[in-house]
Amino acid sequence: MPSIDPKAFILGCSAIGAGLAAIAGIGPGIGQGYAAGKGAEAVGRQPEAQGDIIRTMILGQAIAETTGIYGLIIAIILLFVRPLLGAL
Amino acid sequence: MPSIDPKAFILGCSAIGAGLAAIAGIGPGIGQGYAAGKGAEAVGRQPEAQGDIIRTMILGQAIAETTGIYGLIIAIILLFVRPLLGAL
Amino acid sequence: MPSIDPKAFILGCSAIGAGLAAIAGIGPGIGQGYAAGKGAEAVGRQPEAQGDIIRTMILGQAIAETTGIYGLIIAIILLFVRPLLGAL
Amino acid sequence: MPSIDPKAFILGCSAIGAGLAAIAGIGPGIGQGYAAGKGAEAVGRQPEAQGDIIRTMILGQAIAETTGIYGLIIAIILLFVRPLLGAL
Amino acid sequence: MPSIDPKAFILGCSAIGAGLAAIAGIGPGIGQGYAAGKGAEAVGRQPEAQGDIIRTMILGQAIAETTGIYGLIIAIILLFVRPLLGAL
Amino acid sequence: MPSIDPKAFILGCSAIGAGLAAIAGIGPGIGQGYAAGKGAEAVGRQPEAQGDIIRTMILGQAIAETTGIYGLIIAIILLFVRPLLGAL
Amino acid sequence: MPSIDPKAFILGCSAIGAGLAAIAGIGPGIGQGYAAGKGAEAVGRQPEAQGDIIRTMILGQAIAETTGIYGLIIAIILLFVRPLLGAL
Amino acid sequence: MPSIDPKAFILGCSAIGAGLAAIAGIGPGIGQGYAAGKGAEAVGRQPEAQGDIIRTMILGQAIAETTGIYGLIIAIILLFVRPLLGAL
Amino acid sequence: MPSIDPKAFILGCSAIGAGLAAIAGIGPGIGQGYAAGKGAEAVGRQPEAQGDIIRTMILGQAIAETTGIYGLIIAIILLFVRPLLGAL
Amino acid sequence: MPSIDPKAFILGCSAIGAGLAAIAGIGPGIGQGYAAGKGAEAVGRQPEAQGDIIRTMILGQAIAETTGIYGLIIAIILLFVRPLLGAL
Amino acid sequence: MPSIDPKAFILGCSAIGAGLAAIAGIGPGIGQGYAAGKGAEAVGRQPEAQGDIIRTMILGQAIAETTGIYGLIIAIILLFVRPLLGAL
Amino acid sequence: MPSIDPKAFILGCSAIGAGLAAIAGIGPGIGQGYAAGKGAEAVGRQPEAQGDIIRTMILGQAIAETTGIYGLIIAIILLFVRPLLGAL
Amino acid sequence: MPSIDPKAFILGCSAIGAGLAAIAGIGPGIGQGYAAGKGAEAVGRQPEAQGDIIRTMILGQAIAETTGIYGLIIAIILLFVRPLLGAL
Amino acid sequence: MPSIDPKAFILGCSAIGAGLAAIAGIGPGIGQGYAAGKGAEAVGRQPEAQGDIIRTMILGQAIAETTGIYGLIIAIILLFVRPLLGAL
Repeated sequence: MPSIDPKAFILGCSAIGAGLAAIAGIGPGIGQGYAAGKGAEAVGRQPEAQGDIIRTMILGQAIAETTGIYGLIIAIILLFVRPLLGAL
Repeated sequence: MPSIDPKAFILGCSAIGAGLAAIAGIGPGIGQGYAAGKGAEAVGRQPEAQGDIIRTMILGQAIAETTGIYGLIIAIILLFVRPLLGAL
Repeated sequence: MPSIDPKAFILGCSAIGAGLAAIAGIGPGIGQGYAAGKGAEAVGRQPEAQGDIIRTMILGQAIAETTGIYGLIIAIILLFVRPLLGAL
Repeated sequence: MPSIDPKAFILGCSAIGAGLAAIAGIGPGIGQGYAAGKGAEAVGRQPEAQGDIIRTMILGQAIAETTGIYGLIIAIILLFVRPLLGAL
Repeated sequence: MPSIDPKAFILGCSAIGAGLAAIAGIGPGIGQGYAAGKGAEAVGRQPEAQGDIIRTMILGQAIAETTGIYGLIIAIILLFVRPLLGAL
Repeated sequence: MPSIDPKAFILGCSAIGAGLAAIAGIGPGIGQGYAAGKGAEAVGRQPEAQGDIIRTMILGQAIAETTGIYGLIIAIILLFVRPLLGAL
Repeated sequence: MPSIDPKAFILGCSAIGAGLAAIAGIGPGIGQGYAAGKGAEAVGRQPEAQGDIIRTMILGQAIAETTGIYGLIIAIILLFVRPLLGAL
Repeated sequence: MPSIDPKAFILGCSAIGAGLAAIAGIGPGIGQGYAAGKGAEAVGRQPEAQGDIIRTMILGQAIAETTGIYGLIIAIILLFVRPLLGAL
Repeated sequence: MPSIDPKAFILGCSAIGAGLAAIAGIGPGIGQGYAAGKGAEAVGRQPEAQGDIIRTMILGQAIAETTGIYGLIIAIILLFVRPLLGAL
Repeated sequence: MPSIDPKAFILGCSAIGAGLAAIAGIGPGIGQGYAAGKGAEAVGRQPEAQGDIIRTMILGQAIAETTGIYGLIIAIILLFVRPLLGAL
Repeated sequence: MPSIDPKAFILGCSAIGAGLAAIAGIGPGIGQGYAAGKGAEAVGRQPEAQGDIIRTMILGQAIAETTGIYGLIIAIILLFVRPLLGAL
Repeated sequence: MPSIDPKAFILGCSAIGAGLAAIAGIGPGIGQGYAAGKGAEAVGRQPEAQGDIIRTMILGQAIAETTGIYGLIIAIILLFVRPLLGAL
Repeated sequence: MPSIDPKAFILGCSAIGAGLAAIAGIGPGIGQGYAAGKGAEAVGRQPEAQGDIIRTMILGQAIAETTGIYGLIIAIILLFVRPLLGAL
Repeated sequence: MPSIDPKAFILGCSAIGAGLAAIAGIGPGIGQGYAAGKGAEAVGRQPEAQGDIIRTMILGQAIAETTGIYGLIIAIILLFVRPLLGAL
């Protein structure tokens, strides 16, 4: 008759925590989509500036991406790094 | 009379965590849809710039997609990778 | 006098998780509807560009669809794949 | 003196999960309604383009419908398919 | 001294699930109301296009209705179909 | 020393479920109010089109009403129909 | 040493459910207030159309009222009808 | 050593329910305030139509008040009527 | 070794309920503030109509106040009236 | 070995309730800030009407303050008056 | 082997309540920031009216501050006054 | 075999309360950022009024800062002052 | 067979509290991003005022940063300072 | 038959806390995306000012990034630093 042991408790909480961390992606998703829409609108108005607009848009989106990546990093740490470093 | 064992607890929490991770898709969904609407609007105004607009829109949306993909990755890890790496 | 067994616990949590994953559809639903409205508006203004507008709109919506599909995939995995791969 | 058995636990959780999945319909409901309003507005401005506008609107709404259908599918699976496939 | 039995647990959870499913109606309610307002506005501007506007509005609203109906269907299944198919 | 029996559990959950179902009315309430405001505005601009505007507004609101009625139906079923069909 | 009996459990849950049902009033409250503001604005612009505007506004508000009334009905049923029909 | 008895449980839940019912007042509060602002704005533009504007505003607000009153009624029933009708 | 008695349970729940009821004040707070801003703006545009604007604003705000007062009334009843009417 | 006694339970719940009541301040905070912004804007446009604008703004804000004060009153009653009236 | 005693329960709940009370600061924070932005904008348009604009802005913000102060007061009472008045 | 003692319970609740108090910073963060954006926009339009605009912006932001500071104060009290005043 | 001891309870609650405190960063994140967008827009309109605009933007953002820093401070205190001052 | 030990409790709570901390990324994600969109729009209007606009945008975004980094820092501390400093 086994019962929940300490390791299972940690891994279970890590799974919930990783799911919460992924939710951080809502922010960049909305923001980058706004940028994509504004970029397409700007290109439609000034097709000759397309290169500049796209470069600006991608640069801005790349920075907005960071917090989504932080969420991914935290989730990866929760799911792989910590269990491997079992000593922690 | 079996009871919840450690493995079941981890798998159950992983299922909840995967569901939470999927919720991250709300962000890109709203953002990319905004971009799609702005793109269609821009094409309607300047049909001759259609190629440029669509290229910009897709490029921007592709970046906005990333955080949704992060959510998918985290869910896949929770559902497949971790159980296979039973040792973790 | 049976009691909740490990398998039931996993399947129950998977059902909740699948329901949470489906909620991701709120995002694409709002976003794609916005695109549909903008598309109809654009066609109303420039009926002669209808083909281009619709093509842009559908392309953009298709990308916005993805995160909704991720939610569906995660739910399907939770409901079918994992139970079949009972070994996980 | 019967008590909650494993099957009842699964079916109960499935009922909650199906209710959560249905909530996904909030998104398409808002989005498609926005499209309907924009479509009616566009027809009011250019009645002669009515056919094109309606076609665009319906096409866009049909795509926005998909995530609502995903929620329905997930709920149906939770309520019918899984119990029938008792073996899962 | 009776206690909660499995059937009561399922029916209780189904009641909660049906209530959650009904909440999906918030989306179509807001969306269709927006369409109704835009339709009335459009008719006020171009009374002679009334027929076309109303037809477009109703068509769009009918599609927006669907996810609300999905919620109703899921609730009905939870409340009637599943209990009758006691075998599930 | 009586305790909560199965029937009481079902009826209690049904009461909560009915309350949740009523919340669906938030959507049509906001949407129909928007339509009422737009209708009054339109009549103020074009009093001579009053009949057409009101007809459009009521038609649109009636459709928006539906999801509120679904919530009412689900609540009524939870409160009256299911208990009477005790056999379910 | 009495304890919570089945009837108390049902009545307690009904009280919570009635409170939840009342929350549905948030929707019509916002919507009707919007209509009232738009109506006052329209009358300010065209005082000579006051009768028509008010008639439209009240008609629209009356329909928006319905979902609030549904919430009241559900609460009244929870608080009076069901207890009287003790047999349910 | 007394313990929570059935009557205390009902009264406690009624107190929570009454608090929830009061929250319905958020809706009319926002809506009526919007109407008040629009009314003051309209009077500022057309002081000579002040009477008509105020009459319209108050009429509209009075209807918006109703769902707030429903919440009050439900709370009063929970706090006074039901306990007095102890038989329920 | 005393334990929580019925009266303490009722008073504790009443305290929570009173706190929830006070939250209703968020609505009138936002709405009345909007009215105050619109009033100040209108006076700034037409200082000579100051009296009329202020009268309209206060009248509208007074009505918007009501649901906040309902919350206060419900809280007062929970905190003073019911305990005094110990018999309830 | 003391345990939680009835008085501690009431005081603990009162503390939570007082915290909830304070949250009501979010509404007036947003509303009054909007009024302050609109007032400053109006003074910037018409400095010569400064006195009238400020008077209107303060009057409107004072009314918007009321629901915040209700929250404070309810909290004060919970924290001081009720404990002093120990008999309640 | 000590256990949670009544005083600890009260102090613990007070800590949670004080945290909730501090959340009230979200409202004034948003509102006052809006006022600051509007003030800066107005000064930018009419630098010669700077004194009047700032005076109006600060006056309005000071009133908006009040509900944030209420939250602070309630928290201070929870943390200092009540424990000192141990008799309460 | 130690167990949670009263002091640990208070310190644990204080940690949660301090975290809640910090959340109050969402409000000033949004508000001050709005002010910063409006300030930059105003300077861009009238660079010669830069000093006045910045002075107004900072003054307004400083007032908006207060509620964030209240949250910090409450958290500091929870974390340092109360434990030091162990007698409370 | 060790069990959760007081120190573990405090550290666990501190971890949750630190996570909550970090959420305060949502506010400055949105606000500062708004300022960044407005700043870029302003520079685009008046490149010759770039220095002034950037100086204003950074100054405003620096102030908006504060509440995010408060959250960080509270988290750091929870994670490092309090455990080191074990005596608290 | 092992049970949850103090260390497992701390690590489990830290996982949840790290997930909550990651959610802070929603704010910068939305804000930076807004900045990216505004930047692309500005470049589209004045391609010759591209360098200045991008510099301003990145500068502003970098500051908005900070609170997301705070969330990451807090999560990293929770996951690595504290366990290593086991003595805390």
